[in-house]
Amino acid sequence: MRQGERIDDLQREGLRIIQNPDWFCFGIDAVLLSDFIRIRPGKRAVEFGSGTGIIPILLTARTQVARIHSFEIQGEVADMARRSVQMNGLEERIEIVHGNLTEAPEYLGAGEIDVVFSNPPYMTADDGMSSPTQQKAISRHELTFSLEELFASASRLLKDRGDLFLVHRPHRLVDLLVAARAHDLEPKTLRFVHPKDGEAPNILLLHCKKRGRPELKFMPPLVVYNERGDYTEAIHEIYRSARIDTFEGR
Amino acid sequence: MRQGERIDDLQREGLRIIQNPDWFCFGIDAVLLSDFIRIRPGKRAVEFGSGTGIIPILLTARTQVARIHSFEIQGEVADMARRSVQMNGLEERIEIVHGNLTEAPEYLGAGEIDVVFSNPPYMTADDGMSSPTQQKAISRHELTFSLEELFASASRLLKDRGDLFLVHRPHRLVDLLVAARAHDLEPKTLRFVHPKDGEAPNILLLHCKKRGRPELKFMPPLVVYNERGDYTEAIHEIYRSARIDTFEGR
Repeated sequence: MRQGERIDDLQREGLRIIQNPDWFCFGIDAVLLSDFIRIRPGKRAVEFGSGTGIIPILLTARTQVARIHSFEIQGEVADMARRSVQMNGLEERIEIVHGNLTEAPEYLGAGEIDVVFSNPPYMTADDGMSSPTQQKAISRHELTFSLEELFASASRLLKDRGDLFLVHRPHRLVDLLVAARAHDLEPKTLRFVHPKDGEAPNILLLHCKKRGRPELKFMPPLVVYNERGDYTEAIHEIYRSARIDTFEGR
Repeated sequence: MRQGERIDDLQREGLRIIQNPDWFCFGIDAVLLSDFIRIRPGKRAVEFGSGTGIIPILLTARTQVARIHSFEIQGEVADMARRSVQMNGLEERIEIVHGNLTEAPEYLGAGEIDVVFSNPPYMTADDGMSSPTQQKAISRHELTFSLEELFASASRLLKDRGDLFLVHRPHRLVDLLVAARAHDLEPKTLRFVHPKDGEAPNILLLHCKKRGRPELKFMPPLVVYNERGDYTEAIHEIYRSARIDTFEGR
C-alpha cells in the first residue's frame, strides 16, 4: 500500500480493489460498461486506460475471457492497478501494460484481438476546467490521445467482426459516430443512460463492430435514480450481476 | 377534389387539409417535426418533400414565418398540396414547387434561406419491402434522392448559422450525423421519441446548424403512449399547441 491508497472489498467473490481517492475512484460508468461488454469464452480483449483496473477485474469474474491486456499511460496508476490484479491472483488473465494505447497494435500485433473496451476521458484537451491533480486531469481530458487515435488503434487491433465497447458522454456522440465509421468500426448498439426518468441522458454506451453492416440498434433507456433519489431496480440488478456492492449510503 | 381524396378539418383555426388515404395521410412524425421546428418571425424556410403540405400549413399558424418554399417531386402530390394551400388562403406564405430538392439551390439561390426542414423517406432505396403504390414507395424510400443529397442541398441553401430540422428513424442515426457533419451542418439538438416509457426510441428529431460549434445537446425523451395505450399528456400538449386535433379514437 502506498500513501493515499485504500483497499475496497467488492463484497462478492472475494474481489478487492486498491483505490486512491486523491486521484479517482471507479464510478458507475465503469460498472455500466462492464455490464454492457460481451466477450465469449476464450477470447482476448484489450482495454485502453486501466485506471484502478476495476473493469478487467469485474470481467474476469463475470465472463470466461482468456486474457485482457490493459494499457495505462500513467506509471503510478498502472502500478496501482497491477497490484490490485496481483492481490486478486489474476496475473494469468490480466496484464497491465504501462504504455499509450497508440502503442498497443505494435505490442500485440494487428488483427489479433476479439474485443476492445474503454472508459476514456470524456473531455477534449482544451475543454472545461483543469483538474486539481495530474492524475485526474489525464483521466478526464484527452491529453495523451485523441478520440481519433482511440478508434484508429482499436481498428488496427481488432479482427474482422471484432467488437469495441465504450462508455462516453452524449455531447460527444457526433465525434464518436463519425470517428467510428471513419475507422471501419460500424456503430451497432447504442444505449442511453438517464439520471432520472424523463430527463436527458448523461451517459452513453456504444458498441461498434469492425466492418459491420450499417444498422444501429437502440437498447431501452437505462434510468439511474428513481423519484426518491435512490438507485432504480435496473441499476441494483446491474450491480448485483457485476457481483459488486453499490456502496450506496456509505 | 380528385378521386380518392378527402378533406380533413384540423379542428383549430379553421385549417383544413386534403389527403388521399391510398397514397398516405400525415402522421405523428409530421406533427412532432412541426412542434420541433423553430423559425423566428419574418424568416424564410424551405421544405424538402411536401407530402400533404401539413407541416408548412401548421407552421404558418404557429409561427410568423414569412414564406415557405416546399419542394415535392411527385406532380400529383404537389398538386394536391397546392390545393390545400389555396383552400386555406395561404398562397402568399406557402409556395409548393414541383421539383426535386436537388434543384432547390438553383431555384432559390445559395445561402439565402434561414431554415430548412424535412420529413424525408426513412428507408434506403434497397431497404425493406416495396410499397403498394408508387406514391407510397417514393414517400418511404430514398428513390428520388439520397440522404447525402438532402444534406448537400440544405447546406447550399442555408445562410451561415441557418438551421436544419429533420424527423427520421433511430436506425439511420449514424448516416444522419456523418452526412450532417460532412456538409458543415453541425448536429446541435437531438430528441428521441419512445413508443412507451422504458422502450427503445423509434423516432428521432434532429436539429443542425450550418457551421455551428460542435456540441450536441439532448432534449428529454418524449414518450408517445402511456401504459393504457393512450397518448401521453406530452403528446396531447404537442397536438394542442400545433392547434390540431389528435384524431385519436376516430
